[in-house]
Amino acid sequence: MTGGAAKVPADPLPLAQALIRCPSVTPADAGALAVLEAALAPLGFACHRLRFGEIENLYARRGSGGPHLCFAGHTDVVPPGPAEGWRDDPFSGLVRDGVLYGRGACDMKGAIAAFVAGLTDWLAAHPGHPGSISLLITGDEEGPAKDGTVRVLDWMAGRGEIPDMALVGEPTSRVALGDIVKVGRRGSMTAYITLFGTQGHSAYPQRADNPIHRLVRVLHRLTAEPIDQGSAFFEATTLQVTGFDVGNAANNVIPGEARAMLNIRFNDLHSSASLTERLHAALRAEEARYEMRVDCSGESFLTKPGPFVDALRRAVVRATGREPALDTGGGTSDARFIARFCPVAELGGVGSTMHKANECVPVQELRDLAGLYRLVLEEAFA
Amino acid sequence: MTGGAAKVPADPLPLAQALIRCPSVTPADAGALAVLEAALAPLGFACHRLRFGEIENLYARRGSGGPHLCFAGHTDVVPPGPAEGWRDDPFSGLVRDGVLYGRGACDMKGAIAAFVAGLTDWLAAHPGHPGSISLLITGDEEGPAKDGTVRVLDWMAGRGEIPDMALVGEPTSRVALGDIVKVGRRGSMTAYITLFGTQGHSAYPQRADNPIHRLVRVLHRLTAEPIDQGSAFFEATTLQVTGFDVGNAANNVIPGEARAMLNIRFNDLHSSASLTERLHAALRAEEARYEMRVDCSGESFLTKPGPFVDALRRAVVRATGREPALDTGGGTSDARFIARFCPVAELGGVGSTMHKANECVPVQELRDLAGLYRLVLEEAFA
Ligand SMILES: [Zn+2]
Ligand SMILES: [Zn+2]
Repeated sequence: MTGGAAKVPADPLPLAQALIRCPSVTPADAGALAVLEAALAPLGFACHRLRFGEIENLYARRGSGGPHLCFAGHTDVVPPGPAEGWRDDPFSGLVRDGVLYGRGACDMKGAIAAFVAGLTDWLAAHPGHPGSISLLITGDEEGPAKDGTVRVLDWMAGRGEIPDMALVGEPTSRVALGDIVKVGRRGSMTAYITLFGTQGHSAYPQRADNPIHRLVRVLHRLTAEPIDQGSAFFEATTLQVTGFDVGNAANNVIPGEARAMLNIRFNDLHSSASLTERLHAALRAEEARYEMRVDCSGESFLTKPGPFVDALRRAVVRATGREPALDTGGGTSDARFIARFCPVAELGGVGSTMHKANECVPVQELRDLAGLYRLVLEEAFA
Repeated sequence: MTGGAAKVPADPLPLAQALIRCPSVTPADAGALAVLEAALAPLGFACHRLRFGEIENLYARRGSGGPHLCFAGHTDVVPPGPAEGWRDDPFSGLVRDGVLYGRGACDMKGAIAAFVAGLTDWLAAHPGHPGSISLLITGDEEGPAKDGTVRVLDWMAGRGEIPDMALVGEPTSRVALGDIVKVGRRGSMTAYITLFGTQGHSAYPQRADNPIHRLVRVLHRLTAEPIDQGSAFFEATTLQVTGFDVGNAANNVIPGEARAMLNIRFNDLHSSASLTERLHAALRAEEARYEMRVDCSGESFLTKPGPFVDALRRAVVRATGREPALDTGGGTSDARFIARFCPVAELGGVGSTMHKANECVPVQELRDLAGLYRLVLEEAFA
């Protein structure tokens, strides 16, 4: 009886609309998790509402054995922005010409609804499935991400519920559904540098020590050559100086200090620690006093090809007839937290309107994504 | 009867005090030129008050033949600054322990009084002297210098009264009176650069064009090597970046433009035009759009050794027993305007307190300077 999906597949649209109608702009939950909980409980999920700080989170699990697959996502959304940019109420969940509109339609309330629909069909076909399924849904992915996934994972670890594999439903597809499986992300760090010199008059530079000249040399050292050429699964590491400020208005005054800000997106050849040391080395070469603060919003991670990634790949081929590309580009997501515990990959819809006005997703894409997630469950538990 | 100075030399102190008591902070004259005119008229000077804009100037000449020596200076002073920095009223002209205090004591009301005293003694000894003497005294040296010396010179040129040599009474001495004769000044120019790139997200630098990286390269190109090693009478040209600003607060945003400000002090190997072209060349190498505004406050100039510089040198040796050093360092003065017309050099007191609180000059130094100026007149008209 394997593979026997219900004749009429479950429709993700009503749940997607119900979620969109909750204006859950981070940190507000606005009832979104209650809507989801009401959909999961009848499917046999044990639901745990976990509040950390002002953030609501939901952990729901069906079954207790292994293997344990976790679907991870978020119900919080970014603010809609200026109302005049939107054709409709951003939280209406309106369908027009076969397209579902609303904040969160693609990032990522639609994907959550698609997973629940695919899961419903898979459970109908596999009522006595092996292993267990969980959902880790946070309300703090678009915000500081301090009281969301990272804290739920700690709670899960404390209960011995760390999954064996995790699927994040972020809208990773580039052009067509399933064209990309994201198997890693670059790390991101920002460094704030202040370099000190000796103030003076520009007519007597020998009595001063120009911190701008020193900082220019440091930044030239850091940007003159590429940091690497990329690695097997990653693009090249990039370093971008995003700020340089002195705040001196007097054209004949050599200022006493200069500040720079730089952002590094790095691959698996580096860590924030190794790159911080690289910055210190470039600064130390000046033999000048400086201060540097480094803020790492995520280390790079990679889920190497293996059984889980292969299951995703097979599901995509069955659903679309095409091989997905394994990719590690783009920004960061909560997958970086999960990667500390188990293999994690990201697979979702096409996110071209995410974070924009009139965010939307074709209803057919939502239904196709539900079918794809059903195949992911089949392949992961095959 | 050559060299026969009066038994009791004329004292510069009363005139110096009277001038200091006029609070002539640029552009105010506050009666200073009237005080000076009252001292010169009895000596046989034809006085011309020349008002340009809001600035009072004085041109006074005795005699009409050649050679014509002009003494140039200014009665305006910089603001006294915070009152609590001063022991006395900055405009009191108080003498304490043999030291004359007040704004302008060394820069340069004291020197004007010293010249008048030295001139008085020289005229007494040489009533039928050959040639002519003039004073070009402005009230706009410490200010924008637009309505002062430069306009009086134009007026003089229109009347055919351009001098054959000019002595500027700025406080050029370094440690002891007459240790320096300033025979030139470096030029000074400031460039304001805006370099344009393409704004973008730091995670996708390939879609942006970082103007900070380009500007860092431009400035590195301009500062990595000295511009020159100096010339026969000049120190090396210096280029100091005095500003670099972006004003971007978002650590993950590549900004659309970056601005820098740089100040160049240049010797006689360059002109502001040749240096402007050097800046353009460094900018053009980036093949990016940029804007540059250049503001030149003075070209470099040099009065080469010759009869006039030699007369000054002989006067210093007679007055102090030591050879002066011929120097071209430091900031700018109105000598840069006079240099377009005739040989000009600067010789005055020790300026260690100029522009500072409790500006002062030892009364003995003022009297020695009067004696030195008398010898300058002797040597120049010998
Ligand atoms: Zn998202
Ligand atoms: Zn002066």
